[in-house]
Amino acid sequence: MAEKAKEKEKLTIVVFSGDLDKALAAFILATSGASMGMEVSMFFTFWGLNIIKKNKGALKSKGLMRKMLNFMNRGGSQRLKLSRFNMLGLGTWMMKRLMKDVNYPSIDEFITMAHQMGVKLIACTTSCGIMGIPEDAFRSEVDSLAGAAYFLGEAREAKVSLFI
Amino acid sequence: MAEKAKEKEKLTIVVFSGDLDKALAAFILATSGASMGMEVSMFFTFWGLNIIKKNKGALKSKGLMRKMLNFMNRGGSQRLKLSRFNMLGLGTWMMKRLMKDVNYPSIDEFITMAHQMGVKLIACTTSCGIMGIPEDAFRSEVDSLAGAAYFLGEAREAKVSLFI
Amino acid sequence: MAEKAKEKEKLTIVVFSGDLDKALAAFILATSGASMGMEVSMFFTFWGLNIIKKNKGALKSKGLMRKMLNFMNRGGSQRLKLSRFNMLGLGTWMMKRLMKDVNYPSIDEFITMAHQMGVKLIACTTSCGIMGIPEDAFRSEVDSLAGAAYFLGEAREAKVSLFI
Repeated sequence: MAEKAKEKEKLTIVVFSGDLDKALAAFILATSGASMGMEVSMFFTFWGLNIIKKNKGALKSKGLMRKMLNFMNRGGSQRLKLSRFNMLGLGTWMMKRLMKDVNYPSIDEFITMAHQMGVKLIACTTSCGIMGIPEDAFRSEVDSLAGAAYFLGEAREAKVSLFI
Repeated sequence: MAEKAKEKEKLTIVVFSGDLDKALAAFILATSGASMGMEVSMFFTFWGLNIIKKNKGALKSKGLMRKMLNFMNRGGSQRLKLSRFNMLGLGTWMMKRLMKDVNYPSIDEFITMAHQMGVKLIACTTSCGIMGIPEDAFRSEVDSLAGAAYFLGEAREAKVSLFI
Repeated sequence: MAEKAKEKEKLTIVVFSGDLDKALAAFILATSGASMGMEVSMFFTFWGLNIIKKNKGALKSKGLMRKMLNFMNRGGSQRLKLSRFNMLGLGTWMMKRLMKDVNYPSIDEFITMAHQMGVKLIACTTSCGIMGIPEDAFRSEVDSLAGAAYFLGEAREAKVSLFI
């Protein structure tokens, strides 16, 4: 019974998108879940990996195409853009200002908060392999790298699974 | 037992997107669920709030940036655009014509239908706060405003939870 | 008990998007699920239908607007584009090269694999109706056409349901 009760508490989120607005939605849900006593894991894949990349330092990837991709797709929580109304950065800048205005946490603060609340941050090994992202590209809050099978294992036991 | 049977019947949908096509998908699922006897709730957040804004009347928000945002991001079911092939409105117009052609309901009709079938329409308080959307911006079919914790509470008990 | 155990094994995915990257994510999850012994179904709708359209042959749809739509929105696994960094096809071409480089399956190979592993591929009747897509537009791996009620019926019994 105790185990079953624990199962009910799991929330797993695939974070596929690297948009600022979707990252926000994911972290709002993750931290809300954690504060409600749920066991939360976030599985970052494809563009979502940008959210948990370090903001500083250059990526060292092998091969010309991977170098190009990682130059264009640099990532880092401070480089995320809105999925709508980015307007060459103006809309994104405005949204960040509006969030500050109502004392809302930034993505950086959300990552720290989530980590401190025990939310597991996991980077997808497959995406890293295809895109040539080295393991040291990620911030210290990232718990581990794992594949789709790991996510599905978590999701099977979860009460709520979302793809963002 | 009765309670457990009831739990199985819940369907909760986060409607994050404000695209016409995704709004359609959300309402098709919500009304299908309701007609199958499920207890359905739709939780509108970020751009998804545009779907349930009134089509007429001006938004009164405070501060220059929020005024600008709410001018650009006016919303209302009749202003939604396709996520693909919008082509300055031509694609969206075509899609609406095609839907009418096969006697398919419009988003306006879907909102009324969903409401009449008992689907709960909820607007996200957090997004409203950040974007400065006043409560009277929403149509009468909207049941209430609530936060992420409310959604997770519903999702925990739901058989199916989707993020659209 | 046996029936309950079977329920736990279901994974259902709505594939709404027709982007190459999201199609990849969907097939990685579907084939991982199948290899873990789950019963997997994929429900293709709206732009997601492009993924399972035949790569060759012209679509015969009725009416000028549907002909135009199906000309622009031709589809087929080999015509899918990245949701980001498509860059007039260069980014998409690069991503395909990177996948080949690490011996990763193409979407075509994933469709075949999924089908052979028993993943059910279902096309949404409603989208076909609105967009005027004839039944013979789909590849042979597609099992059947069905509506939203079918998906919800599967999702109700599923342990994991995702909207991609």
